[in-house]
Amino acid sequence: MEHFRGRVYSVQIDKDEAREIEALGFHNYSSLLEIPEAVDYVVVAVPRSVTPRIIQDCIEKKVGGVALFTAGFAETGTEEGLRLQNILQCMAGEAGLNLIGPNCMGIFNPALGVRHSAEQYYGEGGDVGFIAQSGTQASLFGAMAFQHGVRVSKSVSYGNAIVLDAPDYLDYLLSDEETKAIGMYIEGTGNGRRLMESLAKTTMKKPVVIWKGGQTGAGARAIASHTASLTRSPAVWETAIKQCGALSVNSLDSLIDTIKLTLRARQPGGRRVALVAISGGQSVAMADTFAREELEVPRLTNNSYDNLATFFNITGGNYNNPVDISWTIPSIEMVVKLLTVLDQDENVDTVVMELPVFFLAGMGRRDASLAERVLGGLAAFDREARKPFVVILTAGAREKEAVDVRQQVIARGLLTFPDFERAARALRIMFEYNVKQAGVVGGH
Amino acid sequence: MEHFRGRVYSVQIDKDEAREIEALGFHNYSSLLEIPEAVDYVVVAVPRSVTPRIIQDCIEKKVGGVALFTAGFAETGTEEGLRLQNILQCMAGEAGLNLIGPNCMGIFNPALGVRHSAEQYYGEGGDVGFIAQSGTQASLFGAMAFQHGVRVSKSVSYGNAIVLDAPDYLDYLLSDEETKAIGMYIEGTGNGRRLMESLAKTTMKKPVVIWKGGQTGAGARAIASHTASLTRSPAVWETAIKQCGALSVNSLDSLIDTIKLTLRARQPGGRRVALVAISGGQSVAMADTFAREELEVPRLTNNSYDNLATFFNITGGNYNNPVDISWTIPSIEMVVKLLTVLDQDENVDTVVMELPVFFLAGMGRRDASLAERVLGGLAAFDREARKPFVVILTAGAREKEAVDVRQQVIARGLLTFPDFERAARALRIMFEYNVKQAGVVGGH
Repeated sequence: MEHFRGRVYSVQIDKDEAREIEALGFHNYSSLLEIPEAVDYVVVAVPRSVTPRIIQDCIEKKVGGVALFTAGFAETGTEEGLRLQNILQCMAGEAGLNLIGPNCMGIFNPALGVRHSAEQYYGEGGDVGFIAQSGTQASLFGAMAFQHGVRVSKSVSYGNAIVLDAPDYLDYLLSDEETKAIGMYIEGTGNGRRLMESLAKTTMKKPVVIWKGGQTGAGARAIASHTASLTRSPAVWETAIKQCGALSVNSLDSLIDTIKLTLRARQPGGRRVALVAISGGQSVAMADTFAREELEVPRLTNNSYDNLATFFNITGGNYNNPVDISWTIPSIEMVVKLLTVLDQDENVDTVVMELPVFFLAGMGRRDASLAERVLGGLAAFDREARKPFVVILTAGAREKEAVDVRQQVIARGLLTFPDFERAARALRIMFEYNVKQAGVVGGH
Repeated sequence: MEHFRGRVYSVQIDKDEAREIEALGFHNYSSLLEIPEAVDYVVVAVPRSVTPRIIQDCIEKKVGGVALFTAGFAETGTEEGLRLQNILQCMAGEAGLNLIGPNCMGIFNPALGVRHSAEQYYGEGGDVGFIAQSGTQASLFGAMAFQHGVRVSKSVSYGNAIVLDAPDYLDYLLSDEETKAIGMYIEGTGNGRRLMESLAKTTMKKPVVIWKGGQTGAGARAIASHTASLTRSPAVWETAIKQCGALSVNSLDSLIDTIKLTLRARQPGGRRVALVAISGGQSVAMADTFAREELEVPRLTNNSYDNLATFFNITGGNYNNPVDISWTIPSIEMVVKLLTVLDQDENVDTVVMELPVFFLAGMGRRDASLAERVLGGLAAFDREARKPFVVILTAGAREKEAVDVRQQVIARGLLTFPDFERAARALRIMFEYNVKQAGVVGGH
């Protein structure tokens, strides 16, 4: 437990398990009420039939909050599950107990070392808050976002939400200074109006990206068995999310990508992208993918073409838009010159460059300083750039190396996505949001 | 050159380079015509101004074929480029020379050890032929398909296609016994009628999956600078591809996934999928993703529910469709029993299961035999199954381990995809194709 910054108490009535716990160096109590000090947070994982007794203890002990991991309530569709859930709701509601769940993983706070499982990281806290009705999505977000350079400040998996619900967590994250942006995975709510109010208030200060589970009939049916949430038609949700000034996405990947983009200082000011690929075939694929996301790949200004004509001399390449700099990438200095022209072009809102992993990992192996020089050059350009600059790290067959190269690119402060589709989608969602926000609150 | 099964001759007029070549153990000639034996295949990488002289030598030598790597022709949009391309086209056309390119990577034949680069594999040949107008897409297909268990029989990158064009390669692969399915990346053609005829003839015998580059205006403009191909509107292409009985995709990933599916004996007989997830949150995401691809997630038959009630007792799980077997996956025997019920359900056409990498890689580390037992159980089920069975290996944050686990799953003969979206898209494309084929040729 060296990761946890605080005291841990065990409550266990099984004599054998209590012995094992004591062997690990924790004092075990046979009841919550026996603990001599105040308790901030209780994680409850007992059989559902016992839960009312334990919740009663939590109320008497006046604990700060409870995460009720136990499942088997309304989501089972059984009379017994519903009956027990109603009891817990009445008890906790009346006593004003901060009950998270049931059927949830509770809080993840990496800075405090409060985790769902030993799989999760701890240490330095990040700047993204996450609220999820699903334990899996909460855990996956924490782990996968980390791989893309996005770190959690605080996150919560809140399951059936019988007492604390999405608006309560939103209100908290709005007031939390560490949290700069908020992600949500939500299946439904019993109080849509309250959620919309919290959301509208929050999005005035911090971007909120929402992945609504159950966007299809099949998904909505799956929710009935999962958290038994009341859900409305996908169209109603989509409208509500946008009316409240939040961003709407439809997968965890898209949520991670969009959140990452909300945290950047430079934002896409329009749909027009300058694309740089490392081959003609990729320039076609890139242009198709961006155009399918309703982004534009415009002609550059004549001024840019005149400028490029003075130094762009790559055999097999060409400098229309998309620009094809060919596999050989003759010199990073020329690439930076090219990117600078694109950044200053009046027809361009965002500069996007493909950087194949084989280039840094494969060719870099033959020339150890190559990766350093290329990334150094791109990072220097990015610091001076006026518009967003996006690096797309295409893995090809080098899937494992891509994971390491991505960390190098992130360490340089560059904005990076793993494929054309994810980059294009995030840029489109972000741009549409910025346009709307500019009309509402003057951007953020 | 231990990978190449044949003789290699070098032709080089530069004295220094010739010396280096001889130092590597190859005899160097100063002209193609000096080689004392017949030559099957010539790879030409000389400055464009020299190409007519070299092509003339190839004609005189009566070589089997030529891959003209050199770029700088019509795709540059310059008068000189066009002039030279016209000369080559006349010369080769008149002489009946099998000219591949120019502006291409030529042939990849792993069994013969003929490759584009040292990055490519060699050895055992596969059963998929690939025809690409882009060198990058040809190389990427070979390498990336390999990572997904799909191996190339013969592939060609054919660039500007001034003599040999897509229909010629199609005709060849149609007659090639090793090739069971064909993939194509195409940007355009000067002879649409001939392509359609070859295509229609080929698809009567072998599935052909086509990725048309330039499906958008931006993509089509990129093509002008890449291979200068004549291209028509995306809608015309889409209709032509389908009329000819081919499958249409819009990315390399989708091409790989679809080709893989065409090679399976059991094919989706309808849109109805049974989904098995390892958590409630993932069951919702899975149902949404499949429904977005117009697949159906139906209720099971009452018979199945009665059957499941006798043995499905996973706490926190449930057996609607999607089925949630929970993170703990109690026993592989119960999972196989469940899958068997789904396979036999009259409401189900395809059985799809999520298998998280953490389960095999993470939990498998604690219990070394677990991965073996799980994969063994799934493979045994798959051998007896009547309907297609799909395993979706969700990586989460375990991206590197996913690459290794995927190989284990492929080695067991299981059909696997890396995420919900790719699986759903491939199943949808394949099903729509099968319906159409059933009407035309009675399936394949």
